[in-house]
Amino acid sequence: MPKPRPSTAALSTVFEPNAIVVYGASSDPNKIGGRPLRYLKELGFNGRLYAINPARDSVQGVRSFPSATAIDGELDLAVIVVPSESVLGALQDCVRKGVKGAVVLSSGFSEVGSKGAHMQAQITALARASGMRILGPNCLGFVNGVRGISVTFSPSRELRWPQLGSIGFVTQSGAFGSHSAAVCCNRGLGLGMWITTGNEADIDVADCIVFLAGDSHTTVIVGYIEGCRDAPKLAAALDHARLNGKQVILLKAGTSDAGVAAVASHTAMLAGRDELFDAFLRQHGVIRARSVDELLDTAYACAPRIRPASPRTAIISTSGGVGVIMADAAIEGGLRIDPLPAEVQDKIRAMLPYAGTRNPIDTTAQMVNDITLVSKCFEHVIAGSTTDIIVTHLSFIGYDTALMDELSGPLFVLRRKHPEKLFVLSMLCSENIRRRYEAAGFLVFEDPTRAVQAAVKCNTAAAFAREAFSRVDAADTRAMPIMNGKPATEFEAKQVLRAAGIPVPAEAVVDSADAAVSEACSIGFPVVLKVVSRDIPHKTEVGGVILNLSTPEAVVAGFNELHARVHAAAPHANIEGILVGKQIVGGIETIAGILNDPVLGPFVMLGLGGIFAEVFNDVVFRRAPFGIEHASKMIRELRSFSVLDGARGQSRADLAALADVLCRLSRLAAANVGTIQSMDINPLIACPDGVFAVDAMVVLLSDSASEKCA
Amino acid sequence: MPKPRPSTAALSTVFEPNAIVVYGASSDPNKIGGRPLRYLKELGFNGRLYAINPARDSVQGVRSFPSATAIDGELDLAVIVVPSESVLGALQDCVRKGVKGAVVLSSGFSEVGSKGAHMQAQITALARASGMRILGPNCLGFVNGVRGISVTFSPSRELRWPQLGSIGFVTQSGAFGSHSAAVCCNRGLGLGMWITTGNEADIDVADCIVFLAGDSHTTVIVGYIEGCRDAPKLAAALDHARLNGKQVILLKAGTSDAGVAAVASHTAMLAGRDELFDAFLRQHGVIRARSVDELLDTAYACAPRIRPASPRTAIISTSGGVGVIMADAAIEGGLRIDPLPAEVQDKIRAMLPYAGTRNPIDTTAQMVNDITLVSKCFEHVIAGSTTDIIVTHLSFIGYDTALMDELSGPLFVLRRKHPEKLFVLSMLCSENIRRRYEAAGFLVFEDPTRAVQAAVKCNTAAAFAREAFSRVDAADTRAMPIMNGKPATEFEAKQVLRAAGIPVPAEAVVDSADAAVSEACSIGFPVVLKVVSRDIPHKTEVGGVILNLSTPEAVVAGFNELHARVHAAAPHANIEGILVGKQIVGGIETIAGILNDPVLGPFVMLGLGGIFAEVFNDVVFRRAPFGIEHASKMIRELRSFSVLDGARGQSRADLAALADVLCRLSRLAAANVGTIQSMDINPLIACPDGVFAVDAMVVLLSDSASEKCA
Repeated sequence: MPKPRPSTAALSTVFEPNAIVVYGASSDPNKIGGRPLRYLKELGFNGRLYAINPARDSVQGVRSFPSATAIDGELDLAVIVVPSESVLGALQDCVRKGVKGAVVLSSGFSEVGSKGAHMQAQITALARASGMRILGPNCLGFVNGVRGISVTFSPSRELRWPQLGSIGFVTQSGAFGSHSAAVCCNRGLGLGMWITTGNEADIDVADCIVFLAGDSHTTVIVGYIEGCRDAPKLAAALDHARLNGKQVILLKAGTSDAGVAAVASHTAMLAGRDELFDAFLRQHGVIRARSVDELLDTAYACAPRIRPASPRTAIISTSGGVGVIMADAAIEGGLRIDPLPAEVQDKIRAMLPYAGTRNPIDTTAQMVNDITLVSKCFEHVIAGSTTDIIVTHLSFIGYDTALMDELSGPLFVLRRKHPEKLFVLSMLCSENIRRRYEAAGFLVFEDPTRAVQAAVKCNTAAAFAREAFSRVDAADTRAMPIMNGKPATEFEAKQVLRAAGIPVPAEAVVDSADAAVSEACSIGFPVVLKVVSRDIPHKTEVGGVILNLSTPEAVVAGFNELHARVHAAAPHANIEGILVGKQIVGGIETIAGILNDPVLGPFVMLGLGGIFAEVFNDVVFRRAPFGIEHASKMIRELRSFSVLDGARGQSRADLAALADVLCRLSRLAAANVGTIQSMDINPLIACPDGVFAVDAMVVLLSDSASEKCA
Repeated sequence: MPKPRPSTAALSTVFEPNAIVVYGASSDPNKIGGRPLRYLKELGFNGRLYAINPARDSVQGVRSFPSATAIDGELDLAVIVVPSESVLGALQDCVRKGVKGAVVLSSGFSEVGSKGAHMQAQITALARASGMRILGPNCLGFVNGVRGISVTFSPSRELRWPQLGSIGFVTQSGAFGSHSAAVCCNRGLGLGMWITTGNEADIDVADCIVFLAGDSHTTVIVGYIEGCRDAPKLAAALDHARLNGKQVILLKAGTSDAGVAAVASHTAMLAGRDELFDAFLRQHGVIRARSVDELLDTAYACAPRIRPASPRTAIISTSGGVGVIMADAAIEGGLRIDPLPAEVQDKIRAMLPYAGTRNPIDTTAQMVNDITLVSKCFEHVIAGSTTDIIVTHLSFIGYDTALMDELSGPLFVLRRKHPEKLFVLSMLCSENIRRRYEAAGFLVFEDPTRAVQAAVKCNTAAAFAREAFSRVDAADTRAMPIMNGKPATEFEAKQVLRAAGIPVPAEAVVDSADAAVSEACSIGFPVVLKVVSRDIPHKTEVGGVILNLSTPEAVVAGFNELHARVHAAAPHANIEGILVGKQIVGGIETIAGILNDPVLGPFVMLGLGGIFAEVFNDVVFRRAPFGIEHASKMIRELRSFSVLDGARGQSRADLAALADVLCRLSRLAAANVGTIQSMDINPLIACPDGVFAVDAMVVLLSDSASEKCA
């Protein structure tokens, strides 16, 4: 049963308070306990501000009280910097006064052991019972740059930070948040909200994403996460942000199997999860970053919310070599560098006789004599082609203030005339020039490849924004069969698949050679014979499968052979019968399955059969349930998709039927989230006219422990 | 026949001249013609300096003459900035005077058409005939920072550039070179030599690499190349640099098939080349960069020439999250993040009770109270483990001058005690702090991931430096069979392979069913039958192969069936006989081959059979000829290597035999560089005890045109 989800309505009182009280405020403004009060005053908080300190009348010039109840008027937010043992008492005092929210900066909770975890559970319980929303504990608080409210003791506040901007930042790690804020400050990147969630006793990253999605000042949501306790809640928050047109960009540590292995003891478990996390984030329109630079470059690129209508890109460069490097990066990132129409090339060549005009455009050094030749290139490209993204490399011309001033006239006019197009500049320049061009709507980078990668990210954001997915009908999921919790044979597992509407070859279980022949005749030759036994999970290991029997005689011989083999290899196994099934001829072997992750919930997996999945790790995942568009995308994400699509003279697989099977499997996974731990359909044969689950094996949640022992 | 290679001895006179004469010097120091003289004077050239200008006695205060012959004393270098039509005359004047070298900055040669190309050919001829070495034309000259000699009109000279350093930079593109120099200047990266080769009428990038390899001030060689006219010369230059212990780092534009397609009309050709170029560079120990940032980061990382003895890396971070991100990047780049020994972890935990100690080490915020805890972590790691690389993230602590001063004491001592270990810091800091730590031998980066990637590059450089490759014996290559220039049947191609010492299944060509049976009996069953006809290059397309014949009767039936099929499918083909060959049972199908690239020369290719090579592009290349170490590395570079190595319960292939076949194939390719355009061995079956070339097809250089028409 999912926990009742707290509303995020109360969060605006936490992050936009008018009256704040600080518990444990120190009179030394440089101490950790003294910094929150000092920062609040320094950033110019203009609401009411109080301290709680029974021993004093005032702290750092702020009036002090023994308890919140002694203060007149409503209080929106309590800031708690007392020792961990005193936190609960302070929070109870807040509840008595009716304070609406609290930020617990104190550490010493679940991060330090079971006693701390117990105290944290009490905080969670208090939040649930009282309705008071609590950020932390063990967090670095938040900064609301727009309202001038700083509730933190992060030393990064000592820097010029925050420069105001429209980036909404949320992080589970305070240290990561402080570092990122310092980098933003260093490169002039503006933050609006900066929130650290710490141990997440109450308010979590998902809550903050919903808050930022509704915050009018925020244009892009940027975050760092280490884990997730409630995947459906996070999924809903991400979908909400997407609906509100705000791109979410997340860095989640543990990208590689090996990376996770380096820091975790339960390797396989976590490594698996990260692969699923990756699929989950993509499924919900999140751009996942792999480094701080990439996170902040992407935030910078997406903040102006320009979403190019297509990946068609023109590259204009003062160096031919750099132009090719940029084209390489563009195409690798999924942009299109189409040749410009001949008329456009002619016009450019008329101005710049030695220019490369195809795309990338190499202006050569000629344009230094007349810098407006650059803007004229822009004009011709925009007027004569269907380009939506223009990336321009100006090298160190950016240092030349006179040239850049001259260029800005015509270029800024073009920028205003085409607000829907993305203009990215790569140049070395002064901060002044950079700010002027940024203010006019250009993205400015020093490195040409990073400039292109920013365009790639904007294109990805635009593609996410265009995606439309049909709703998964809850009734369809409820209509799915439910596994009964007992270990299932292949035959039973496939009966469940059949009930879910997934095609299974005609088959029956028999207990005599005569019955086998009779079933084979009714099914039609060729047939396969397989042993049916709950004691034999892996049939092939005991020789328990015989393929391709084309005559009644062969079926009789096969039946006897199968019994002989199994008796020899597994003398004590209880044989429930022999399965006679139609042999599927031709088609492409795929593997599909269900994975029920303890953290993220049910997923559907797809890969090509044989060694593809294993050797090249060519498998794709989607969190269940999902609709036909996701299934279709999933199939096309396989690197070996061309094999299904008829490469190398093979017949094209029935892709519509395959997508339908994946959707049904996803609903089956969702319906059986309490029973199925994993399911393998191996092979799932994709024929030109239909897809068939030829073998299936289920591991139930209840029998996974005994499976592991076996 | 390779061209005679000019000696590079004379290059030191070009790049370290004592007497310079400038042709076409303008008296306006801001004009292109005036800048070289001005820059020479500004940078403080302290040798003799003259101008050639018949109309003046002095130019910019430099004494001017009508001709070089009018100048007393030896002249080392002429700088030519006259119009293209006058360049040859100026150079001839130089030759008459006995000037040893010339830099032609003028453009208007092969880059602008056939007239220019003709003039350029005259320059080449003059250089060859006179022995005078010539840089350019259409280049931006060079800057020798160590000697204070600037021969260029690149406007990037207007910047503070060059800051002196040990990076030797060489580029075919002047615009790329100027941009890179500006970026170096911007980030305080020091250049020693900066050379642009332009159209390379005489001196090319390979010459410059040899010069820089011998230059005592240069520690790392960094370059940009667009193409290569003489691959063996470039290979020799790269090997020479490696022998001299100087890592070469190159950026070559056109990394992706698609990137090249975007700028070139003859797509397939160039795209193929880039794949080979990539293999070629790796084979000769070059680190290939993909962006300007990566090129210069790698140069910065490799310049101090610290080559860690192993990839064993410790990560120390003030943020747990950043530590995991760094571990991810480290492992992805091939570093090892092993858990620290328990004693070391205990010692760290004793200092920092809440620290993560496994590796990465998460110091938590505790160490802010005692910054030397960071250096103590270093001490414990160094003393108690086999770590060779330490990457540390300090976030914005770098801004705190007092803390960084305090830390520098113990840290610099450790640095001096362990000069062979690599120390990389990631932090935000002032330029002063950065320079201090750099001077002490630390690499300093802002972004933690870039810091790790720098360590990855140093590890790659160290691995390249450790590589030892046995010399390929020229006699072995000369002993190889030579194709006779006539189209070969499968049987003939395999005879050549057999003569090269590559195992081929026992086989014979017969013309009757009786003879087929007799051969089959002598070879041993099962056998295969294949049609032999020069008119049928693709046998399977006409049903011309029958496998797995186990009895004499089956051979007779197969013989007749094969004739019938081929007559039906290709009635006009001249059938030279039927090949009876031993059927290879079991083993793993690979494909191997020879590719003779018109630019880069002969390569050997290896891939797994089936759709692996095609769908996943899992093929590897080496330039021929090569020895056993390269062959062995090549096999292990296949992503699907695990399949050959016995994955999924398969028998392990005979890897030694496979490596031997690749070496022999490489010598065959080298010996037949004038005859073979390409050769496919498909399949080359790798069995547990031997490797067999089961089918082979050769395309000769002489018949490639007709092949394409067929």
